[in-house]
Amino acid sequence: MNKEVLIDIGLQLAHLRMYPLFDMCHYLLTAIHVRDDIQQYPTVTQNFIRRHPLSCWLSTMLLCFSGSILSNFLLGENLIKDFIHHQHLLLATICWYFVFYSPFDIINRLLRFIPIRIVIGVGKEIQRTKKIYDGVHSTLRLYPDAYLIVILIGAIKGCGGSIMSSIDRFIRGLWLPTQHEFLFPSFATKACFLSSIVFLLSHIELLKFEHELIYLCVASMFIYVRIITSFFKQYDPLLPFENLSCGLLFNSWTDLISDAYRRATVVSPVTTQQNSALPAATSSLSNTTTLMNAKKDGITNDGQIKGFDGKK
Amino acid sequence: MNKEVLIDIGLQLAHLRMYPLFDMCHYLLTAIHVRDDIQQYPTVTQNFIRRHPLSCWLSTMLLCFSGSILSNFLLGENLIKDFIHHQHLLLATICWYFVFYSPFDIINRLLRFIPIRIVIGVGKEIQRTKKIYDGVHSTLRLYPDAYLIVILIGAIKGCGGSIMSSIDRFIRGLWLPTQHEFLFPSFATKACFLSSIVFLLSHIELLKFEHELIYLCVASMFIYVRIITSFFKQYDPLLPFENLSCGLLFNSWTDLISDAYRRATVVSPVTTQQNSALPAATSSLSNTTTLMNAKKDGITNDGQIKGFDGKK
Amino acid sequence: MNKEVLIDIGLQLAHLRMYPLFDMCHYLLTAIHVRDDIQQYPTVTQNFIRRHPLSCWLSTMLLCFSGSILSNFLLGENLIKDFIHHQHLLLATICWYFVFYSPFDIINRLLRFIPIRIVIGVGKEIQRTKKIYDGVHSTLRLYPDAYLIVILIGAIKGCGGSIMSSIDRFIRGLWLPTQHEFLFPSFATKACFLSSIVFLLSHIELLKFEHELIYLCVASMFIYVRIITSFFKQYDPLLPFENLSCGLLFNSWTDLISDAYRRATVVSPVTTQQNSALPAATSSLSNTTTLMNAKKDGITNDGQIKGFDGKK
Repeated sequence: MNKEVLIDIGLQLAHLRMYPLFDMCHYLLTAIHVRDDIQQYPTVTQNFIRRHPLSCWLSTMLLCFSGSILSNFLLGENLIKDFIHHQHLLLATICWYFVFYSPFDIINRLLRFIPIRIVIGVGKEIQRTKKIYDGVHSTLRLYPDAYLIVILIGAIKGCGGSIMSSIDRFIRGLWLPTQHEFLFPSFATKACFLSSIVFLLSHIELLKFEHELIYLCVASMFIYVRIITSFFKQYDPLLPFENLSCGLLFNSWTDLISDAYRRATVVSPVTTQQNSALPAATSSLSNTTTLMNAKKDGITNDGQIKGFDGKK
Repeated sequence: MNKEVLIDIGLQLAHLRMYPLFDMCHYLLTAIHVRDDIQQYPTVTQNFIRRHPLSCWLSTMLLCFSGSILSNFLLGENLIKDFIHHQHLLLATICWYFVFYSPFDIINRLLRFIPIRIVIGVGKEIQRTKKIYDGVHSTLRLYPDAYLIVILIGAIKGCGGSIMSSIDRFIRGLWLPTQHEFLFPSFATKACFLSSIVFLLSHIELLKFEHELIYLCVASMFIYVRIITSFFKQYDPLLPFENLSCGLLFNSWTDLISDAYRRATVVSPVTTQQNSALPAATSSLSNTTTLMNAKKDGITNDGQIKGFDGKK
Repeated sequence: MNKEVLIDIGLQLAHLRMYPLFDMCHYLLTAIHVRDDIQQYPTVTQNFIRRHPLSCWLSTMLLCFSGSILSNFLLGENLIKDFIHHQHLLLATICWYFVFYSPFDIINRLLRFIPIRIVIGVGKEIQRTKKIYDGVHSTLRLYPDAYLIVILIGAIKGCGGSIMSSIDRFIRGLWLPTQHEFLFPSFATKACFLSSIVFLLSHIELLKFEHELIYLCVASMFIYVRIITSFFKQYDPLLPFENLSCGLLFNSWTDLISDAYRRATVVSPVTTQQNSALPAATSSLSNTTTLMNAKKDGITNDGQIKGFDGKK
């Protein structure tokens, strides 16, 4: 009974109409993100928003439709296919206008109020799940066996914005080559790739659960992380797994061995063998931990990245 | 009678063959533009033109065919479709060669002579009008109801060069992220978008004039501005409208009100109400004007932008 | 008899299966190139390889499949067509992993051993020849008369990596706009364009040799230069021809004349005519030579370019 209710919720979620409401949540959050990004990196030009409305608009539109633009680009199709129907661009433009230029900045201030922000965030995550699901299935129709392409296009539909942020900033006259998604992948990007894989596995029936349940799970995961990140600035549940697999795969353990070996051979003539191997291993292990923490800092601590960028 | 003559001129203008003469005007002016741009931003390499002929050639060709390359890119078609027939590239290469490497720089000096420059400029504007017109109509055949795409492709056919100037400069080893068309749109870009809209309106019969008359009007407008800008450095007839609409749309009037309100509430206890609201409004209005002038300066005064870039 | 043996070798070379072995050589050398490039421009981030595995992987894959990606991009086709079959990406990923993260860096050190490097280099050049040949012929099937497109696509299949190196470095957080292939074309790029032209001429029967002989010649040329460059850092057999044609085409001879003329007119009233024209011509000629040497330095001497970049 309980499972059937869940399946029913998943079914309804998967068949929700995205157009006016959920798309609007996505456009609003994107516009707010662009505004924040403008304020985070103040260019020399004062009052950027009013002096360069074209640049702001183009930048916001690019992010709003980035998933579609980027996946069409990769598949060699019409990049501006989304604009064949006008209503999407119109809605996005209205959202942009109200976030950027509402009288007395009302809309912008309203959207920063936590409960409203969470409601809109939930809407955006539901739209994201739908986009990934549709992306995976429409690509499967074109390339039934090209699983890599299916995963890539599915993920890009969900996280195109973060991948295109460099081009987006360039349109606003900012160029930060040391700060992009490929150097510091965000949780959203990783989660989009994982969801895309899960949807594919469910389609080729390697994951033997009901499609609706899987859809519900993925959507809840996105919503859960969105709500958590509304309260705590940084939250990446994948980080521990990532650090572990990085440590194992990318050769940190050989450093440990070679370090231990080097210490053993150097220290052995002077002192006894007993105090060499274990402490070396420990210190090497703590080095690895430091490296991992540093990595985590690199992702979380924006100040450090900025300083590093400033020096360049 | 008079109208029929005009229609006849418009008809003949719309059916002119572009290939050898008018295309040549476009290629010559583009090559001169690239040469000027190289001299405007001297890189550390002395004698750039002779040391990097490949870079100069590629950069000029990219600008010569930018409209076609960019619109094919956006529509997901073959980017180098224009090169299926060799004569265009051949003609462009000859123009480039003579502008860059003619013996004793004769051609380059000749083309800077004002009357010749105006004749070539007129030829280029006729070609530009034709390209926009063809762009609008060929896109309408592909996407009959996608008006946004039609306007975009039409405009890009006319002003692709200015949009691609960043990539073009990059090929010459220059990277100026704070100076591109989206931050400081030139008059040509705006006029191309307007012409594209006018051609579309005329096609869907919202503008009930003869097509030939509209074609003639658009061409004359481009030619007129080209001649004016040959004498006066900067001329943008759209700027007043733009400033007005920016002032109204982008929220400057709310500043005015909130400023007045702030002053009224602050000053009122101390002095009488009479000298607060009006001067405040005036000063706020003059602020707006300053902002607009500053914007105008931002567009016209290259020195300021360069300084601003230099600091970055 | 001797010629028949050569034709037979050419035939066998042209029908070699590329997939596991020769492709592997290409992937291994590309991965080594990326690793060297990371070490050549140390970013502020220490231990880049372990901290940014995603960036390293993406950067290597982009270079491994650059020829296909770039030519598909130019022809408006699916950019990621190569990934429809998984085995190529899998092989490239395995090569990348072993070059970057093999225990105790064994593979990387092994591959730097000259004889192994030469064997792998030969494999890569055979694969390059095959890719150019296939590129020319597959493009001829699509655009039978568009010789420019055929040459371009053929060449890009062979040297896509060097053209995409800017994007590749950007993915690793490096941005060097003053250092790309269009400013300083490498020998490989020029040779790819020449080979592409030779294959085209052979196809349209302007070069009346057996196809197999031509194939063998092109492959041997690539292999020969590869072996030479394993011992001597820089070797460009095209440079003398290039300098000569640059001197003739790009107007250096008019400098010579105008210089001589200027000296003749200035010096003539003071001294006798006899000692003016000839020395002037000589000094101007030596100027041209200096310029050519400087050009050669610009290509070979990385230190100078780096300094020039650092100042920017």
